[in-house]
Amino acid sequence: MAFLAHLESVVTQVEGSVACSVMGFDGIAVETFQAPQQADYASQVELSSAWVEYGNTLSQLKTGAELLKAGAVSEVSVNTEKLITLMRMVTPEYFVVLALRPEGNYGKGRYVLRVTAPKLKAELQ
Amino acid sequence: MAFLAHLESVVTQVEGSVACSVMGFDGIAVETFQAPQQADYASQVELSSAWVEYGNTLSQLKTGAELLKAGAVSEVSVNTEKLITLMRMVTPEYFVVLALRPEGNYGKGRYVLRVTAPKLKAELQ
Repeated sequence: MAFLAHLESVVTQVEGSVACSVMGFDGIAVETFQAPQQADYASQVELSSAWVEYGNTLSQLKTGAELLKAGAVSEVSVNTEKLITLMRMVTPEYFVVLALRPEGNYGKGRYVLRVTAPKLKAELQ
Repeated sequence: MAFLAHLESVVTQVEGSVACSVMGFDGIAVETFQAPQQADYASQVELSSAWVEYGNTLSQLKTGAELLKAGAVSEVSVNTEKLITLMRMVTPEYFVVLALRPEGNYGKGRYVLRVTAPKLKAELQ
């Protein structure tokens, strides 16, 4: 399971990336790649706390969506003053999350997660 | 309070818009503009049910974010197979929500909500 190479590729491709992780819906990260030069920033914004909170949100949305006619949730983003967070479903048990600085490339982040999710899914099977 | 003109302007500007609404965190819409030609689609995806669910999510994130170092939540999007939903905070009590068809213009939707939120805020005061 070569997750790390895929996560590093996401961080390298998307300007403003802080870190990228494959997480389970239990809130535990399977693998994380952190941009080396952004370690201080990740610590400053307490990235792991934010991810646990947002992961809970995604989990609730996933469950709630089963009752909705709008269909299954594929992608959620949560943007704050200091952090852009993009999340995309990989399997029913796992999702990929990318944190960017506020000035990061949001559109490219969405695109790169979309093309990376199937690669991560293949590794998980 | 001329909300409707602002909401209509959002729907007109953003390709693929289904409806745009100013909502309170109690889940009640203050005002809604629905694209006339998308009424069947809004009904098919049960838009109002989805918005109540997503509004709850935004409310939880807003509360949770007070404990996080990443700062206050400004924008959340939830994308499913059949619906793109963009939400942006207007005041601590109200947010604006825009629903797009999956092929809608996501980037333009974000931009237009960003410039419209201060106008809505001015109407609310």
